[in-house]
Amino acid sequence: MTIPSMNQQYRLAARPIGMPKPQDWTYAFAPIPELADGEMLVKVLYLSLDPAMRGWMNEGKSYIRPVGIGEVMRAGGAGTVIASRSPRFQVGDTVCGGTGVQQYWAGAADDKTAGFYKVDPASAPLPKYLNALGMPGMTAYFGLLEVGLPKAGETVVVSGAAGAVGQTVGQVAKHKGCRVVGIAGGPEKCDFVVNELGFDACIDYKNGSLKDGLRTHCPAGVDIYFDNVGGEILDTVLTRINLKARIIICGAISQYNNTTPVKGPANYLSLLVNRARMEGIVVFDYADRYQAGVVQMAQWMKEGTFKTREDIVQGLENFPETLLMLFEGKNFGKLILQVAEA
Amino acid sequence: MTIPSMNQQYRLAARPIGMPKPQDWTYAFAPIPELADGEMLVKVLYLSLDPAMRGWMNEGKSYIRPVGIGEVMRAGGAGTVIASRSPRFQVGDTVCGGTGVQQYWAGAADDKTAGFYKVDPASAPLPKYLNALGMPGMTAYFGLLEVGLPKAGETVVVSGAAGAVGQTVGQVAKHKGCRVVGIAGGPEKCDFVVNELGFDACIDYKNGSLKDGLRTHCPAGVDIYFDNVGGEILDTVLTRINLKARIIICGAISQYNNTTPVKGPANYLSLLVNRARMEGIVVFDYADRYQAGVVQMAQWMKEGTFKTREDIVQGLENFPETLLMLFEGKNFGKLILQVAEA
Repeated sequence: MTIPSMNQQYRLAARPIGMPKPQDWTYAFAPIPELADGEMLVKVLYLSLDPAMRGWMNEGKSYIRPVGIGEVMRAGGAGTVIASRSPRFQVGDTVCGGTGVQQYWAGAADDKTAGFYKVDPASAPLPKYLNALGMPGMTAYFGLLEVGLPKAGETVVVSGAAGAVGQTVGQVAKHKGCRVVGIAGGPEKCDFVVNELGFDACIDYKNGSLKDGLRTHCPAGVDIYFDNVGGEILDTVLTRINLKARIIICGAISQYNNTTPVKGPANYLSLLVNRARMEGIVVFDYADRYQAGVVQMAQWMKEGTFKTREDIVQGLENFPETLLMLFEGKNFGKLILQVAEA
Repeated sequence: MTIPSMNQQYRLAARPIGMPKPQDWTYAFAPIPELADGEMLVKVLYLSLDPAMRGWMNEGKSYIRPVGIGEVMRAGGAGTVIASRSPRFQVGDTVCGGTGVQQYWAGAADDKTAGFYKVDPASAPLPKYLNALGMPGMTAYFGLLEVGLPKAGETVVVSGAAGAVGQTVGQVAKHKGCRVVGIAGGPEKCDFVVNELGFDACIDYKNGSLKDGLRTHCPAGVDIYFDNVGGEILDTVLTRINLKARIIICGAISQYNNTTPVKGPANYLSLLVNRARMEGIVVFDYADRYQAGVVQMAQWMKEGTFKTREDIVQGLENFPETLLMLFEGKNFGKLILQVAEA
């Protein structure tokens, strides 16, 4: 493959107020540098678009440094090594890591922030490595098992059930013998969650009352709630939790673009009444155990008892609008941007 | 002692909206029944007035049945057995239990709801048995140790620091080798907490910025926050918590008389960022281990390394206004109503 000389990138131009707008981005053309010893060049094929990206665009202390103004937007990606001056990766290797929103990533092959690792494209299609076999899957797997501590027979509720994290949470919980009830927006997503993924039920929060749905589908109450959305949905689930319930705070997509303060869970005193627990999860804490999660889920996939769905949009140039799909609930499955053909 | 024939009682007349008003109570005169076999009559000397009582006046599912309209208001008390047809208690015994807001309690000596148990008035003044050696003390002791899991060197913050639960939380934490910072209203309470109880610092939230106080007095951040108040104070502490912090939700006195919805903690996503945990505690869960807590704290008292302060108001007839002191922050120490002389 000829080594390209130019790279196209999305850089953060301004910190968004509310929903990211076109002027919050710069579409930049940058030369691809000569590789120094120990460096490599990765051609990006797929980018993972995640709700967490909205948080990375804000200033302030968080679990990860904010993306700086003028910097290439951070994103996880999958691609092919097309040049290498490092013994660590060979030309032709398929890799995942923090590529950023651009066509090519160049840098030290062992860059800790990017954290590239090899994946096997013969074992699973590449987008799966950005879904269940990647960060969303690890988030779901370790969040549910390590923070939720599910026991067979318990009732697990998960919001964003058709999304990247939700799909995996529900299926892992089913594998652990739990009753699993999803919350999703619209009948198509609910059908998919129940009929394709095998959840016991799914509540369409856009059509009907969530409270009634929880009453109907969680007759024994809620033992574990895996929250990806926050806001009213979190507040409603809090009214249905059981004694010693565990609430896993993974995200709050309903609140990420607020221009008013975040809506805190008004029913948080249900934690007191029920001696229940609300706990946050950040996937990076489990990095040294990802392999175990990948092996387990890959095995379930092979056995046909674990499915995933990706929603793949084409074209780097469509990044800004595609990202917004997440916040409008328009993606159906793990949202992925395809940047190039393999 | 002659057995009295009449009993004076406060009964719940209506479910309060906001702060309890005089018309929410009935001051009733009721005959004292003849004792049947297995029953006893207790003369109430002291009543424990607690923030939780406000919750018991509301309808709705909680960790305990609401007080019914027309029923004697529930309260913990200490008193003397003045008549007994039960082998379980003798005339002259000093007992603690759920006496209710009245002069005399009559009923089965082994009544589970009242849960009477003998105490030794020679070991400690009776009001201490409604404070550190009673429910507030047990709440603090088991909440801090079992939910907070303090480690030496960690920073523990407690709100309502001069109150019944707060006093004990801070002193137990000091005994465990923690840095302890109280939050209280007014310089007198703060002086007491630091100079009498030995906290490392106390922030007067009524005079100055809590955020600045936390910055100054918790230079290494907050590892454990024991929350008795909720509202803005909880929200502010959430901005200063450390990785893997534990927040013990014991109460939310700032919210109990709301006529608008409870203010949920808008900064709850700090739990996510910090992989922190927020968990409720209800003291009754530890009932089978109270004895261990009592023994430990009584020993510290004897050694002079554990102090408590009670704020004792005289007269059953003053119950309604006295209860309000809790919600106005007017009590200084554990609030107790003295109903009669021993």
